[in-house]
Amino acid sequence: MIRTIEWTDAGVVMLDQKRLPAEEIYHTYIDYEGVAEAIRSMIIRGAPAIGVAAAMGIALGVKNAAAKSPSIEELGREFDIICIVIAGTRPTAVNLFWAVDRMKAVYARVRPLGTEAVRNALIDEALTVYREDIEANRAMGRMGQELIPDGARVLTHCNAGALATAGYGTALGVIRAAVEAGKKISVFADETRPWLQGARLTAWELAHDGIPVTVITDNMAGHFMKKGMIDCVIVGADRIAANGDVANKIGTYSVAVLAKENGIPFYVAAPVSTLDLNIPDGSHIPIEERNPDEVRMIQGVAITPQGVPAANPAFDVTPARYVGAIITECGVARAPYGESLRAF
Amino acid sequence: MIRTIEWTDAGVVMLDQKRLPAEEIYHTYIDYEGVAEAIRSMIIRGAPAIGVAAAMGIALGVKNAAAKSPSIEELGREFDIICIVIAGTRPTAVNLFWAVDRMKAVYARVRPLGTEAVRNALIDEALTVYREDIEANRAMGRMGQELIPDGARVLTHCNAGALATAGYGTALGVIRAAVEAGKKISVFADETRPWLQGARLTAWELAHDGIPVTVITDNMAGHFMKKGMIDCVIVGADRIAANGDVANKIGTYSVAVLAKENGIPFYVAAPVSTLDLNIPDGSHIPIEERNPDEVRMIQGVAITPQGVPAANPAFDVTPARYVGAIITECGVARAPYGESLRAF
Repeated sequence: MIRTIEWTDAGVVMLDQKRLPAEEIYHTYIDYEGVAEAIRSMIIRGAPAIGVAAAMGIALGVKNAAAKSPSIEELGREFDIICIVIAGTRPTAVNLFWAVDRMKAVYARVRPLGTEAVRNALIDEALTVYREDIEANRAMGRMGQELIPDGARVLTHCNAGALATAGYGTALGVIRAAVEAGKKISVFADETRPWLQGARLTAWELAHDGIPVTVITDNMAGHFMKKGMIDCVIVGADRIAANGDVANKIGTYSVAVLAKENGIPFYVAAPVSTLDLNIPDGSHIPIEERNPDEVRMIQGVAITPQGVPAANPAFDVTPARYVGAIITECGVARAPYGESLRAF
Repeated sequence: MIRTIEWTDAGVVMLDQKRLPAEEIYHTYIDYEGVAEAIRSMIIRGAPAIGVAAAMGIALGVKNAAAKSPSIEELGREFDIICIVIAGTRPTAVNLFWAVDRMKAVYARVRPLGTEAVRNALIDEALTVYREDIEANRAMGRMGQELIPDGARVLTHCNAGALATAGYGTALGVIRAAVEAGKKISVFADETRPWLQGARLTAWELAHDGIPVTVITDNMAGHFMKKGMIDCVIVGADRIAANGDVANKIGTYSVAVLAKENGIPFYVAAPVSTLDLNIPDGSHIPIEERNPDEVRMIQGVAITPQGVPAANPAFDVTPARYVGAIITECGVARAPYGESLRAF
């Protein structure tokens, strides 16, 4: 079992995803600022895992604040600051804001009961977010695996696995469930520049579970599709708009277009916490721009000439028309997504 | 002026393209085996440059053999071996075999005149191949630049520049000619994993010439096309079949599909030495598989978990239906390519 993130008495423990696969190092964060920095610097990443980290970060901040026996008013001011800091870490994955809102709702409900009750309720809620995420992934796996034929060679992009969630994974959860159902599955993992989530994390996870995986560079996916060597594509999501447009790791749009051109089904697996029904379509999803040095350097080694600029949008938007199905814990949605997603 | 390859009295001098942009190092090869190894290990790469290197390698081998004053029969046996070794370096770029055939034709013609005449004729022919390549690139530039609108933001993949040729470049030659014609051009360079020809070589060349260039990862090209930030695509080629199917660096097919999906013209620039009218379509083009460690490692740093396999096809085939025009030194070919290419 891969331990991506855990709540412990000592603090929030995370597996450092910047160091994998070379080193398996766990950090224990003892304050919410540490958790916020871990999200920002991508020690933890993946929309559902960011949601869990956000909930645990807020619980940790409130736990520390409560230890100073503040008045409920003082705790409330601290709670507001904690939520602002956590919500400001990354802009695209809506699970972050969903988790913050969930913690705020609990806070508002329990506030009349005082500091101690707020502290306990927020810790409980963070643990519930964690547990529900694993359960959602298991449910997605059960339903989603029915879409994956026995013998399928599945392409995935980025890492939507145990490392991107509290455990089991979304897209990789569906693959794991297909394997558990007795199907023979092999996986092509796009390396996913600039951060190499595919080459580093997806390859590590699948090798860990004994599921056959071959790493390819992002620009090889189309070639293998055209050669008839890929049967379906499954990816995760960072935010899904009301019409079914999907924001996910940069390169997902390209994979979706190539899949359509080659008549290959393209599936998205994501919990309903990734749905953002408040926005009509993908054009309203904020796309994070990260430091161009992530493109100009690989593992600390400069690859471009000095002074040459690079662009680094971390996500792109895949229009709903390329998406064959959206697998959630509440069911498998099909087009038209405006209706099917709202039903969840 | 970028000096990719040169014939000198001391030997064949090449700029080491594995070390760019970090270091600008020139090697002098004093025998044909050294030239063959330079082609094989990609110290020199790019279809037209490989053709020039092949011609110079054969000339160098014959020059060395002739220095031992062999009989014309002995020289002939040595010539055959040299041609086999040079032709065996890389399989996809047809310019290699074109150059070998050209040297063989000269050899056959001049053989009756004896060793000294063969030696001189082959050195002359290698220098002619070199000179003609630069002239072809200039001609492609003049004609091709008319396809590039003023203000265009041009995407290119891999390196089809001065470094891929004797000088000036094919795709980058067209861009250079557009700039020389007074047009304001900016370039997006796909980094081109695994070998990073875009991030390392295209960025270096264009920065060298003061042409604005932004490096992007391969998986970003679709995103920028969809956002309306790319006006046209221009790439080189390693082999073009009779029907206009184009083998080029892995990832070219994906770029072509994304360009079509977004209504963006996709152009190929290549000398007629890249045409292989003996094969009916791209399915007959041999695709080189290189060492998977080129994918598993970047600049000597391992990125994948130990023992996880990787695939490394070096090229893909873009069907002719995605190609808006093929720019050659003999003119700009349009579909149906079966007719337009044969006219050259």
